[in-house]
Amino acid sequence: MTSWTRLIRFTALETGGKKVHIGEPCDPALDVGLAVLNRQPVKAFEISGTSALDYRATVTKRVLTVQTLLSPVDPKEVGVARFLGLNYSDHAKENNLSPPSFPVLFYKPWTSLLDPFDPILITRAVQPPEVHLSDYECELVVILGRLARDVPESEALDYVLGYTGGNDVSFRKHQTAVPQFGFSKGFDASAPMGPVLVSAKAIRDPQTLGIKTVLNGQVLQDGNTRDMIFSVAQAIAFLSQGTTLLPGSVLWTGTPAGVGFARKPPVVLKHGDDVRVWVDGGIGTLVNPVEEEGKGSVRAKL
Amino acid sequence: MTSWTRLIRFTALETGGKKVHIGEPCDPALDVGLAVLNRQPVKAFEISGTSALDYRATVTKRVLTVQTLLSPVDPKEVGVARFLGLNYSDHAKENNLSPPSFPVLFYKPWTSLLDPFDPILITRAVQPPEVHLSDYECELVVILGRLARDVPESEALDYVLGYTGGNDVSFRKHQTAVPQFGFSKGFDASAPMGPVLVSAKAIRDPQTLGIKTVLNGQVLQDGNTRDMIFSVAQAIAFLSQGTTLLPGSVLWTGTPAGVGFARKPPVVLKHGDDVRVWVDGGIGTLVNPVEEEGKGSVRAKL
Repeated sequence: MTSWTRLIRFTALETGGKKVHIGEPCDPALDVGLAVLNRQPVKAFEISGTSALDYRATVTKRVLTVQTLLSPVDPKEVGVARFLGLNYSDHAKENNLSPPSFPVLFYKPWTSLLDPFDPILITRAVQPPEVHLSDYECELVVILGRLARDVPESEALDYVLGYTGGNDVSFRKHQTAVPQFGFSKGFDASAPMGPVLVSAKAIRDPQTLGIKTVLNGQVLQDGNTRDMIFSVAQAIAFLSQGTTLLPGSVLWTGTPAGVGFARKPPVVLKHGDDVRVWVDGGIGTLVNPVEEEGKGSVRAKL
Repeated sequence: MTSWTRLIRFTALETGGKKVHIGEPCDPALDVGLAVLNRQPVKAFEISGTSALDYRATVTKRVLTVQTLLSPVDPKEVGVARFLGLNYSDHAKENNLSPPSFPVLFYKPWTSLLDPFDPILITRAVQPPEVHLSDYECELVVILGRLARDVPESEALDYVLGYTGGNDVSFRKHQTAVPQFGFSKGFDASAPMGPVLVSAKAIRDPQTLGIKTVLNGQVLQDGNTRDMIFSVAQAIAFLSQGTTLLPGSVLWTGTPAGVGFARKPPVVLKHGDDVRVWVDGGIGTLVNPVEEEGKGSVRAKL
């Protein structure tokens, strides 16, 4: 059991942006992502230690002010990032695909993981004329806290450290041409994650959470984790069969209906867009601008 | 450019098996895997440093004797393991599939990587009645020495540290049921790698290497890397598009015809089997026994 309820990872004004801290937001109801976007001062009680994975870490009384908000775990610490495909019944339906008989697993390399506010990159390989196939996918992201192998479904949630949000940015150009998603899903800066890691002690049932994507102010996905085909517990139990799931590894649990690719006409990510993933339960809003590589840098806007 | 030509990673008799060393085999023609299997004393000049990835490492005059042979790079150091599917024309043909129009990429988690002589595990999830779908796949494995991103084909081989062998052990039970290989290819102890890492300076052209699988003494795959659909250089150039390929990451380059699954009748891996992958160019023989989880431990036999 963690001592903290909600955890953020950040650099602080008080230490000149030179050190990475972890902390518990002082305001337990604050949407940290929106507050940072709106340049509100976000205060957090520093948590001892350097990693959310350290169960001995405790919340201290030292208050720090967020300078730069980071993903709640270091991508290098994540190591292995697992993703479920087709895990919401409405998303399977919009793709005209039958629900799978067991969890469909693919990976992204950890180099694709991205901090809040950093630009999602549309790399040259997927730029025009194929740019219209750059897509968003809001997801609930599970971070494992203990080594799991051959775990029964009834105990699977005991292995969860906490939950955060993610945008499984997807480039359809190559995705539909070969049977594996390895290349199309693995580009640099294509998997923003955050902003807040909510302890499993605070989200006892991960199958009741609202989840949304908002693109340039327009709600394009508006789902609920209750519509998952395989629950978080079922997925962990299944995936841990004969397979060591390491502490710190992450499981992205699929996206609900509303992706741009399946819309008529299709909706696309393009240079300068503002894409936000919101997840309920205290996780809040993950904001990222979109940058077409080579077109100059972009910044998240108010 | 590396100072060594052939590198092994091992524990040594001289240091009581307590320290991991890297070294250059004293006999430049020795098949290290077979020699260790046959309990010949294998001598190596110690290489300074602890990792093949350290370009400053130099071959010393200290001679050590191999106690336990390990994979030439530490799986933790590998981090990201990429695999090409359907990359030999004869293998595509035996599967009745058209050659892909670009490299088909999937991943295994680094936790699936395995040392020479350690048992390949047939985990409970893929045991009888499906045990007959456990399969071998001999592969040439490329280890990257420098960070590669957007690399042209003409320069791609400059990013290669060296080459070794691998057995992409594949369990067909789940592989053919859903479109992603993530679960079926990711079991613990399903990707033995080694035994020798041959420097890219010694293998100038990786498209001329013989490659074999020998199961219980019978040659079941007997191919040549010249039959790859996408050459090593093409694959690196393609995969580095918009994607950071880190030093130490590995690229498994696909398997030639002769896999058990496509044979009539099918050939299967089972408890107590001895499976060997041999690759030309000084890489040599990678030996692993096969263990069905729960049936007791197995050892490599002479």
